[in-house]
Amino acid sequence: MPTASGLPFDDIRDLLTTLPEPDAAARERAALRNLNLLKPAGSLGRLEEIALFLAGWQGTEKPAINRPIVALFAGNHGVHAQGVSKWPMQITQTMVDTFTQGGAAINQICAANGLGLKVFDLALEHPVDDFTQGPAMDERGCAATIAFGMEAVAGGVDLIAIGEMGIANTTAASALYAALLGGTAEDWVGDGAGADDAQLDRKRDAVQRGLDLHADAEGDPLEILRRFGGREIAAMVGTLLAARVQRVPVLVDGFVATSAAAVLHAMAPESLDHCLFAHRSDEAAHGRALDLMGKAPLLDLGMRLGEGSGAALAAVLVKTAAATHSGMATFADIGLPEVTSVS
Amino acid sequence: MPTASGLPFDDIRDLLTTLPEPDAAARERAALRNLNLLKPAGSLGRLEEIALFLAGWQGTEKPAINRPIVALFAGNHGVHAQGVSKWPMQITQTMVDTFTQGGAAINQICAANGLGLKVFDLALEHPVDDFTQGPAMDERGCAATIAFGMEAVAGGVDLIAIGEMGIANTTAASALYAALLGGTAEDWVGDGAGADDAQLDRKRDAVQRGLDLHADAEGDPLEILRRFGGREIAAMVGTLLAARVQRVPVLVDGFVATSAAAVLHAMAPESLDHCLFAHRSDEAAHGRALDLMGKAPLLDLGMRLGEGSGAALAAVLVKTAAATHSGMATFADIGLPEVTSVS
Repeated sequence: MPTASGLPFDDIRDLLTTLPEPDAAARERAALRNLNLLKPAGSLGRLEEIALFLAGWQGTEKPAINRPIVALFAGNHGVHAQGVSKWPMQITQTMVDTFTQGGAAINQICAANGLGLKVFDLALEHPVDDFTQGPAMDERGCAATIAFGMEAVAGGVDLIAIGEMGIANTTAASALYAALLGGTAEDWVGDGAGADDAQLDRKRDAVQRGLDLHADAEGDPLEILRRFGGREIAAMVGTLLAARVQRVPVLVDGFVATSAAAVLHAMAPESLDHCLFAHRSDEAAHGRALDLMGKAPLLDLGMRLGEGSGAALAAVLVKTAAATHSGMATFADIGLPEVTSVS
Repeated sequence: MPTASGLPFDDIRDLLTTLPEPDAAARERAALRNLNLLKPAGSLGRLEEIALFLAGWQGTEKPAINRPIVALFAGNHGVHAQGVSKWPMQITQTMVDTFTQGGAAINQICAANGLGLKVFDLALEHPVDDFTQGPAMDERGCAATIAFGMEAVAGGVDLIAIGEMGIANTTAASALYAALLGGTAEDWVGDGAGADDAQLDRKRDAVQRGLDLHADAEGDPLEILRRFGGREIAAMVGTLLAARVQRVPVLVDGFVATSAAAVLHAMAPESLDHCLFAHRSDEAAHGRALDLMGKAPLLDLGMRLGEGSGAALAAVLVKTAAATHSGMATFADIGLPEVTSVS
């Protein structure tokens, strides 16, 4: 449940003006190391980009990922009452229980790949209000939930994959995208966790009514977040911010997790410089969001589960990129000439 | 070094007519299990396809990958004399030494992800003959090398990622593709491990001269393999065949590894049904080959290293797909109705 720290939106806006940058010198040293690794220059493609990205954020020529976690946030949504999902709202709690008991997809993915898993449920018994009727949250509650999400970045974690669970939360995410990035309900609504045609019609209708009701929030991303919710999305905004402050790289999962990133992107695109986008979800509008935000995902496996599942798979790539960059032999090791300059 | 078992090409052609099929009943049981797993149907995308694929080849509803390996084959090429590569031929041996000492990219990828690594070097001191001057191998040597490659499928391995190392072997692979799939040298030649413009011109020229010299091999894929080489490619043909006979799934790496698969594809496309294609290499013509063979790769990370590096990364996905499918809770576990039919 969110703590009531009462961090107001202005503090978050201020925070965005003082975000730390990556260590350019460390990144440069890593780039030089990369050119000396025993392989044709560039031949590891995006693994090389990832290694340099990590070097910058970790401030070291040889980055390492030793404590990667998946942080999963669960919330419930008042807009569920509009008949937008095929699943009863109770499934959110059921899945949180399943995460705890180890039976979900994300548990298997984490266990198979040495990733930690932290689950945060956000007052599931009190869904945020229905955004077709009014704001999903008040400012105090929204800010407190962002503050709560900041707590996920603790205990020396060095890579955070963010994911979520929340019946009806693709409805909230679609509304957020439309309000933040433009376009209509039609552009942003997809079948989420398996909506049928009637549910899909109601989902589009709910999103459009929400957009009409909250049109006055235009241009104020935190206010848009407050209007549409949900708590799991607000918490991921907090995790993204706290990770940046602590220079911890983040892997952003699919359609709903990316909507949290879209809030920050709308405020300051460079606030996401510590993020990698894990995969292109099969939820069609996710690709649209990534394109509009200028983000190239690492994987494209037709997945649309949420739970951080795509981000967890991408975390394996990131961990491997660090291990490869930092562990490989160099040209000098085999008596070949050293590369002494990046240019 | 290849053993001289003397397996003639006719035996290989015969083998292709008696290949085992996947266990359709096991696959069907896995498909039903998949529909009962605690997630929206289809939401794990290609991970679900992979799990069903594994179920068929392992003959079980709950597949598992416990002994995955990367099998790396190294060979040298007489066509190197045509000035097609920026690297001296000795680098093949240097890289084999590096694989043994643990300093290459593939060593780090395997160590980070619990994959075994087996390295097979194929008479590096005796490059195959220059295909611009005559056939790369004689039939006896080619067949013996195929037989040698069959030995990689041993010791109870349950997933084999095939990869290669061989200075100038993208030249041989380009010639193989052109001879097997059609097109000109221009269509199939790329910059491999960093050829400059002059090397690239010589590479195109060498491939075109080879194609002209060996035009009479058209329509006979094993003869085409013999004409262009190399030994590492012939060995991978053997691994692909032996894996199929033993129903062991194979992950095919990039441009050169896929050329081995292209030999079998030209003989009998269904002989590759136990294969997954790991990634789309940054070597441009790899995508062309995959498209012509009707294969959709799992990853697209701009990689073009070889060494089985892309196949090893994809092996992590395959291992995770099995763990997820076989370890997840079902709807029945949480008291929801069971799905009793796939249709």
